[in-house]
Amino acid sequence: MKDCIPPLKEPKTSQFEPQSVGCKIPQVELEGLLERCLTDHSCQESDPPPSFCQGIGSDCSLQPSGVPDVFLASTTDFFYPLVEDPYVMGKIGATNVLSDLYAAGITSCTNVLMILAGSSDMPLEERRIVLELMIKGFSDQVEKAGSKVTGGQTIFNPWPMIGGTAMSVVPKGELVQLSESQVGDILVLTKPLGTQVAVNLHQWLVSKPDLWKQVEGVTDEGEVLWAYDVATESMQRLNRTAAILMKKYNAHAATDVTGFGILGHAKNLARQQRRHVTFVLECLPCIKGMAKVDGWVRQGDRFQLRRGLSAETSGGLLIAFPVDNVEGFLNEIYLEEGWRSFVVGRVVDGNRDAYVKEPIEIIDVE
Amino acid sequence: MKDCIPPLKEPKTSQFEPQSVGCKIPQVELEGLLERCLTDHSCQESDPPPSFCQGIGSDCSLQPSGVPDVFLASTTDFFYPLVEDPYVMGKIGATNVLSDLYAAGITSCTNVLMILAGSSDMPLEERRIVLELMIKGFSDQVEKAGSKVTGGQTIFNPWPMIGGTAMSVVPKGELVQLSESQVGDILVLTKPLGTQVAVNLHQWLVSKPDLWKQVEGVTDEGEVLWAYDVATESMQRLNRTAAILMKKYNAHAATDVTGFGILGHAKNLARQQRRHVTFVLECLPCIKGMAKVDGWVRQGDRFQLRRGLSAETSGGLLIAFPVDNVEGFLNEIYLEEGWRSFVVGRVVDGNRDAYVKEPIEIIDVE
Repeated sequence: MKDCIPPLKEPKTSQFEPQSVGCKIPQVELEGLLERCLTDHSCQESDPPPSFCQGIGSDCSLQPSGVPDVFLASTTDFFYPLVEDPYVMGKIGATNVLSDLYAAGITSCTNVLMILAGSSDMPLEERRIVLELMIKGFSDQVEKAGSKVTGGQTIFNPWPMIGGTAMSVVPKGELVQLSESQVGDILVLTKPLGTQVAVNLHQWLVSKPDLWKQVEGVTDEGEVLWAYDVATESMQRLNRTAAILMKKYNAHAATDVTGFGILGHAKNLARQQRRHVTFVLECLPCIKGMAKVDGWVRQGDRFQLRRGLSAETSGGLLIAFPVDNVEGFLNEIYLEEGWRSFVVGRVVDGNRDAYVKEPIEIIDVE
Repeated sequence: MKDCIPPLKEPKTSQFEPQSVGCKIPQVELEGLLERCLTDHSCQESDPPPSFCQGIGSDCSLQPSGVPDVFLASTTDFFYPLVEDPYVMGKIGATNVLSDLYAAGITSCTNVLMILAGSSDMPLEERRIVLELMIKGFSDQVEKAGSKVTGGQTIFNPWPMIGGTAMSVVPKGELVQLSESQVGDILVLTKPLGTQVAVNLHQWLVSKPDLWKQVEGVTDEGEVLWAYDVATESMQRLNRTAAILMKKYNAHAATDVTGFGILGHAKNLARQQRRHVTFVLECLPCIKGMAKVDGWVRQGDRFQLRRGLSAETSGGLLIAFPVDNVEGFLNEIYLEEGWRSFVVGRVVDGNRDAYVKEPIEIIDVE
């Protein structure tokens, strides 16, 4: 559990207390398991395009549907609350699950099934209010994305959970090939990093004085409250516009940045490329003030943001563009959304891997 | 939580201890929530057939896909372990999630996403073994059903979880109308009831002597061990053959029996019928010895099996057939599978509701 901050374990009876991070099984442990149990269908250089590969670690599953020339894309994701407001948490849960479709260049979602757990430690009336707000936030955001919630599963659990499965039926002609990056491509990221650092520091500030002490003096209350607001807004921002524009500007490869950090997802994406390329991350745009705490927390590498390994929730798209298309994309997404995107690296000759260049340049995003 | 036995809360560090029941939010609480938050699309008598209605409580979601004359069916379900063997538990999890497609008359599954939680209280090496066996059982069963696991989400949680989302892309011509029951139809059930009673009694026998005491003398070790074996086998039995045959014998309505008990699901199904009908449950086939314990447990109505409210996991299909087709179905499914199905009631004139006839006839199934 090194790159995963354990959720709080105390019974939560008096408020909707956030659970820190969507505590995923570590990437190495999980991949070992899946490789032993499931069949991998990663791309090979000998595969002729168009190739729609399904390596372990793909953002979403893409399957022939049985109906000729129609594919079924699907993805599931759920996690524990990480902001206090159940309505906002519902919105983030929906944004996060839709993101995997967008990362695959699929901009239309047929329907979503909601996955929800009410806390078994919460009094009935409180649980009802929390569940209702989470459902409403989730459902509103799915509708904002032009889709709808049509079912799901709701259980009791010690920790609340929110998420779902998003699906899209896609005619073959609308599929985008995202295993086509080549030497010289530029890597762009559409949201700043550091969402979970902000969420954790905020939790320390409001309810964990012992942990807060170790970063006092490095950061301060004002900076953390501001970063938490930015992170909360960012996690609610749909990657749909980014997905539409990445197709318009002819992206060669794309993924979204979530639980394994930008480097983890860059490695996944690199492994699925048809050519022998490597992704070099040359700078990391981070919500202002979040990167500097890395060296100050008790376990030195707890967040690992500067190493590209800090988990993100509902992070941005990481996209490889032909060099001539980058400026157009950066300008148009800023005009549409009012959020900056960032050039974070380049594609070089290599062995289908990714790394963070040392020393890494940090951009403090205000 | 009246009709839901709370899962064990002790940290589980030394074995893969079952968590009793898939602890669903109670039906009334959940429906209230969903009705306030989501849009209902139940059938109306004025709807002309063919009508593919999507009332809250439908077994699976059925959506126009955007591709002309192609629908997307999807369903999600997951729960806590209820047998000791992680491999068998994986198989049951897969059987259970596929069941909702079969209940809708959809016999071909495009793909499944797996939902999995490894216990955060388990030592790493043990968790790995348990997860690997659960994945293998789940994946093997999905393959047995002619489909495949193509993704999922894996997290840490205090309690382990297993389940998934099953999807099917269905040409309109293959959809079955299951809101067409009419007065005179016969209700058939394809698996005996009592799976969770058996699982709970077994747990009491092996690790809860205080609870076991209250049923000692009513049942005994031999009966409970036998019932547990039957339940374990039954929960692994795919409803696929039943779904194929219910179409062949022109079923008018169908659902599968799971967390809300046979009566809860009969009520759901009745509410979605186009005509003004009521489903009367006249007898309840139960795994031998399970029904008699109802009056003996400390909270008198804990299991509520005789009232049709005991939760089932991966239960059978409840199907309304035209009277002339019942014998053919009963004979053919027995020949194919070696398991008996049961006539459990009839369809009468009514107000789209269901009830258990008093006094109820119990069939002890050996």
